[in-house]
Amino acid sequence: MYRYSVATVARTEMVEITSRVQEAVSQSGVKDGLATVFVPHTTAAVTINEAADPSVTRDILQGLEKIVPYRAAYYQHREGNSDAHLKASLLGSSVNVPVEGGHLVLGTWQGIFFCEFDGPRQRQFYVLVAGESPR
Amino acid sequence: MYRYSVATVARTEMVEITSRVQEAVSQSGVKDGLATVFVPHTTAAVTINEAADPSVTRDILQGLEKIVPYRAAYYQHREGNSDAHLKASLLGSSVNVPVEGGHLVLGTWQGIFFCEFDGPRQRQFYVLVAGESPR
Amino acid sequence: MYRYSVATVARTEMVEITSRVQEAVSQSGVKDGLATVFVPHTTAAVTINEAADPSVTRDILQGLEKIVPYRAAYYQHREGNSDAHLKASLLGSSVNVPVEGGHLVLGTWQGIFFCEFDGPRQRQFYVLVAGESPR
Repeated sequence: MYRYSVATVARTEMVEITSRVQEAVSQSGVKDGLATVFVPHTTAAVTINEAADPSVTRDILQGLEKIVPYRAAYYQHREGNSDAHLKASLLGSSVNVPVEGGHLVLGTWQGIFFCEFDGPRQRQFYVLVAGESPR
Repeated sequence: MYRYSVATVARTEMVEITSRVQEAVSQSGVKDGLATVFVPHTTAAVTINEAADPSVTRDILQGLEKIVPYRAAYYQHREGNSDAHLKASLLGSSVNVPVEGGHLVLGTWQGIFFCEFDGPRQRQFYVLVAGESPR
Repeated sequence: MYRYSVATVARTEMVEITSRVQEAVSQSGVKDGLATVFVPHTTAAVTINEAADPSVTRDILQGLEKIVPYRAAYYQHREGNSDAHLKASLLGSSVNVPVEGGHLVLGTWQGIFFCEFDGPRQRQFYVLVAGESPR
């Protein structure tokens, strides 16, 4: 298992981590298999989406804010970050990406993003790589 | 594959199942690998979120109800549980958790929750553990 | 890894792909393990939900449209498909399904669906099967 740190700089933010996930795949020596990215936080998530035009992640974060507002009268959790907890469950704590020939098999526009919903904070994510490696 | 039952007691409810998932990991003998929890239902889900303060899961369920109301004029499905089907797809039918030294690698605040959206019912979830076990 | 094509016919659509995923499992020879379906697109997703009554997927798509409208004043992405990108991240780019005795272990009502959010288009999905096969 490979452990990585991310320092986020805003309350909500999507940080591309594709190259670090590829780095873990390369270090593992696995040629064909599956890479899993896991986020050990309850107010952050991981997702796959477009990495080309930054307005996409901007619209995703804005859209999530419309769906789950930062402030709402019904929240009872005293830390005031209930929106971040719900966003984390909506996007999820892990993604799977196929590996072929030692490389992540991503679509043309896909990138892997660490999603911060209650930053800025020092965060972590883990990468596991399962599969066959030549001897 | 390890099969577990959950008896839910409300229409919407999040039941913590972390210790049962750990039990499956221990029984499997796998030391390093990945545990996958799968829910074989279309109106229930599984998610990872905060297990310390119960107001977090309460706010998550309330927030989901705001996003996807129980009753809405446009629903055509006659069973009257369209909201539960959509919530199930929003949260997802499986989670992955890394395993190290025979233990689930979860963050300090993380727990695994069976999510009921159309209960009370008798439900099931499955745990698969893949990886290396010492001989 | 098994690659499949899907030709979608509408802007938003859920296409059942369960039988093709089972086909991949059968071809792999894996008897006990885990099948992973991965979608290499940023405006499409994959989910598991009810495959019996078509009004369920109709209500899911309609419900997603209520949550994330096609048109909204705040979208900045110029391609005009920001809703599709957000829907893709809400439902997710992969699902995991247990395999036992060479068959997908799905609940009675569960089917696997390719989810189109910006069609019609020619699309792809990949299936990976990990586990034990008899020699």
